[in-house]
Amino acid sequence: MDHIDIEVVADPELEDPVFIEGLPGVGHVGKLVAEHLVEEFDGDLVRRVYTTDFPPQVTVDDEGLAELTHAKFHHVAADGQDLLVLTGDHQAASNEGHYSLTSAFLDVAEEFGCERAFALGGVPTGELIEDDEYDVLGALTDGADREAFEEAGVEFREDEPAGGIVGVSGLVLGLGRRRGLPAACLMGETSGYLVDPKSAQAVLEVLQDLLDVEVDFSELEERAEEMEEVVGKIQEMQGGGGGGMPSEDELRYIG
Amino acid sequence: MDHIDIEVVADPELEDPVFIEGLPGVGHVGKLVAEHLVEEFDGDLVRRVYTTDFPPQVTVDDEGLAELTHAKFHHVAADGQDLLVLTGDHQAASNEGHYSLTSAFLDVAEEFGCERAFALGGVPTGELIEDDEYDVLGALTDGADREAFEEAGVEFREDEPAGGIVGVSGLVLGLGRRRGLPAACLMGETSGYLVDPKSAQAVLEVLQDLLDVEVDFSELEERAEEMEEVVGKIQEMQGGGGGGMPSEDELRYIG
Amino acid sequence: MDHIDIEVVADPELEDPVFIEGLPGVGHVGKLVAEHLVEEFDGDLVRRVYTTDFPPQVTVDDEGLAELTHAKFHHVAADGQDLLVLTGDHQAASNEGHYSLTSAFLDVAEEFGCERAFALGGVPTGELIEDDEYDVLGALTDGADREAFEEAGVEFREDEPAGGIVGVSGLVLGLGRRRGLPAACLMGETSGYLVDPKSAQAVLEVLQDLLDVEVDFSELEERAEEMEEVVGKIQEMQGGGGGGMPSEDELRYIG
Amino acid sequence: MDHIDIEVVADPELEDPVFIEGLPGVGHVGKLVAEHLVEEFDGDLVRRVYTTDFPPQVTVDDEGLAELTHAKFHHVAADGQDLLVLTGDHQAASNEGHYSLTSAFLDVAEEFGCERAFALGGVPTGELIEDDEYDVLGALTDGADREAFEEAGVEFREDEPAGGIVGVSGLVLGLGRRRGLPAACLMGETSGYLVDPKSAQAVLEVLQDLLDVEVDFSELEERAEEMEEVVGKIQEMQGGGGGGMPSEDELRYIG
Repeated sequence: MDHIDIEVVADPELEDPVFIEGLPGVGHVGKLVAEHLVEEFDGDLVRRVYTTDFPPQVTVDDEGLAELTHAKFHHVAADGQDLLVLTGDHQAASNEGHYSLTSAFLDVAEEFGCERAFALGGVPTGELIEDDEYDVLGALTDGADREAFEEAGVEFREDEPAGGIVGVSGLVLGLGRRRGLPAACLMGETSGYLVDPKSAQAVLEVLQDLLDVEVDFSELEERAEEMEEVVGKIQEMQGGGGGGMPSEDELRYIG
Repeated sequence: MDHIDIEVVADPELEDPVFIEGLPGVGHVGKLVAEHLVEEFDGDLVRRVYTTDFPPQVTVDDEGLAELTHAKFHHVAADGQDLLVLTGDHQAASNEGHYSLTSAFLDVAEEFGCERAFALGGVPTGELIEDDEYDVLGALTDGADREAFEEAGVEFREDEPAGGIVGVSGLVLGLGRRRGLPAACLMGETSGYLVDPKSAQAVLEVLQDLLDVEVDFSELEERAEEMEEVVGKIQEMQGGGGGGMPSEDELRYIG
Repeated sequence: MDHIDIEVVADPELEDPVFIEGLPGVGHVGKLVAEHLVEEFDGDLVRRVYTTDFPPQVTVDDEGLAELTHAKFHHVAADGQDLLVLTGDHQAASNEGHYSLTSAFLDVAEEFGCERAFALGGVPTGELIEDDEYDVLGALTDGADREAFEEAGVEFREDEPAGGIVGVSGLVLGLGRRRGLPAACLMGETSGYLVDPKSAQAVLEVLQDLLDVEVDFSELEERAEEMEEVVGKIQEMQGGGGGGMPSEDELRYIG
Repeated sequence: MDHIDIEVVADPELEDPVFIEGLPGVGHVGKLVAEHLVEEFDGDLVRRVYTTDFPPQVTVDDEGLAELTHAKFHHVAADGQDLLVLTGDHQAASNEGHYSLTSAFLDVAEEFGCERAFALGGVPTGELIEDDEYDVLGALTDGADREAFEEAGVEFREDEPAGGIVGVSGLVLGLGRRRGLPAACLMGETSGYLVDPKSAQAVLEVLQDLLDVEVDFSELEERAEEMEEVVGKIQEMQGGGGGGMPSEDELRYIG
């Protein structure tokens, strides 16, 4: 297998598609939003991305079928707006892997004609969010229109996020900017300790506004509960060889 | 030396051979089964596989002869059924190494004409198994026949193994599936704390049935008795581990 | 992106330029000096150096604009002396990365015609420096003129620095010597626990003398006063570290 | 710089030379013996071996001159017997690096026409050696003559060293055997906690016998005392960025 191996599952023509990245990270906010979009609009799988920088691991489904771990691109037809949504269970395992993997993701996005990108994630506050006031912070590349983001409720704060943005989300902006791809990172505030559907909803509300689509939120909390259960089981098993869920290390990523 | 270097020791013609992988992992279940097959049927060494992803290490035999660490393929003529059995002392040391090494292993299996593969291992329960009820869990690629496995006593449970299957065993399925090689992982339940010949025997019983061969267990039973003594001593001393026991790291692999 | 990617921002003709390296390290002494030179003489950015050996990270500026982390070369016209000043936020993440990155830095320095190099850093004493007596230690390649350094106040001590010099600063000398580039490392004594503008000033005084330029220290002194306040606060709180302070890991580099 | 870079310093014709490896390891036994041979017989430097798998580090000599860390080959004319002696301050930093570096070392040995190799090291007993009874254990490749070793006082014990031989010494045997180079590892028993000149002397006595040369031991004890002092100083400085001395990790190697 090559270092990165992209499997073409389908090759639909997309109209003005927007690239949306939601890999695991702080509070699993980005992952929740991305998976919610795929399921809510019944997205079609278009690409599988395998890489030797992912853990040497298969997941086993309810039928007992094993499948090599990979990241997925879905085409999501959302209310007339074509989206290309990236989800998965892992970030890369090395610095170099993050760079090469994100480059490959951006290649796919370019191939489908995406001219805008959103990297979704959470930003940890270290304490529980009170009164359901989940702010959404933003960071942009220079091609993006800051005013439109502010109108959609995105906040830009001088010293935040203090440590910059790491992981695939950071590189979607960093490498995207170098390619001339206008990109934005939307980060829902979250305690950082739990899978956080409320933070995901806050991000989704902003995204809804920016993309001019409408999304049903009702299943978001259920989905978060399921995710939490899986995370819990895996933590119980601990001895049992890693898992489909990100490690504590991976949770450090804003993704 | 190349990253992976395969030494041809012998090149017999095999008839409908089955590839069996048993590298170190949880409870050393897979390793015990594979080594038992090689010894019981007096297997012939056919390939040595060296890789720079193994530790920089030689083993020293009773004559004082040093030999570079490597994985071994034996041809095992088991009761009329040709087997190609992979054993060794190490998993790879890196994500990338796991992928490239397993690819090399599958190349060898293909070269010998294997059209089925079994990855053997243990699945940790976290507690001692009572009443000698060692279940064997299964995971399959889509080419494999689930019913035949169920008839042989293999269990398929919805959420297990929760963390998927990591290491070479996982990739025999994951990469095997991508190559169109029907593969199955047989995982004996084991506490996860000790080398477990009883779990190995449970796996061997299933395998016997699936391959339609007969294996003498007596040496494995002896080993089991020795181990039980060890377990007893360890329970007395409460200290545990060390020596010939696999490290905690090795125990994380289902292999 | 390639492993190392050098972006040409400007290509001025420099006259007898001197290469000055000031990446993060012990007490951030080298970084403080290099950044002070760039700001005091209003340097022009000439190169950005990206590498997959840096963390997968973007910084976010006060406008919310994200930028891929990189090292920077500035042309500094200091009092009639052309300087090529290297600054940044990271050392490499691997042994191999240190070598390839420093090679790339030296290639840029050669391209601009630098025939002398200074690697700036701190050397940890393990205790607070008393009476503002900040000595500056030196190490040289064989092309450099030791007497001139001693006249400028640089000390050469038989057993120091005991552990040699690690990181990019060390390699500027080690690889520089192999290329025939006369190079010197100037190391300000510093406790090693805090960002140390006073140690930076001591290094700057030596550098001023060696390069025959004059530098205004007033902003550095201000910084020193701020730092002293911080030191005071930290001593009160006993907690230490965090925030803008370098991590323990970064402090291990003499840079 | 390439991954491995070999600098030719001199190219003498050697007669039936024997390759002797003494890199840092348990008790620094191998290093002590190799350095003693070089100094006692006033060896000539013939090769410097640089590699990006060594730490990014320069050593600074008493004149303040910095030199990139490297391993050294000396030609030692010992009492009519030509030796090619390898010394240095580091083992490789990765599995892959150990393999490629040892291959490069063996290439140099072959180039000079060495047809025998000795890897020198210590084997840790975990307790202080009493009554100055320092046994020397051996391990061989199949080309070597075990009887001659036994006559020289080398012991071969069934289960020792239990964990095999790791690091460059192990690979001199493992890779040497694969090249058809008769090689032996001589391991002096040592507590494993300290630089051990007495264990080095025991190894040297065996080597003297096997090579039919005579070596003056008087400086060995002095050297050990000096080394002990240096180790002490470095332990005091701790903060000071690594160093010329091997880390605890490196002391795990039998070398």
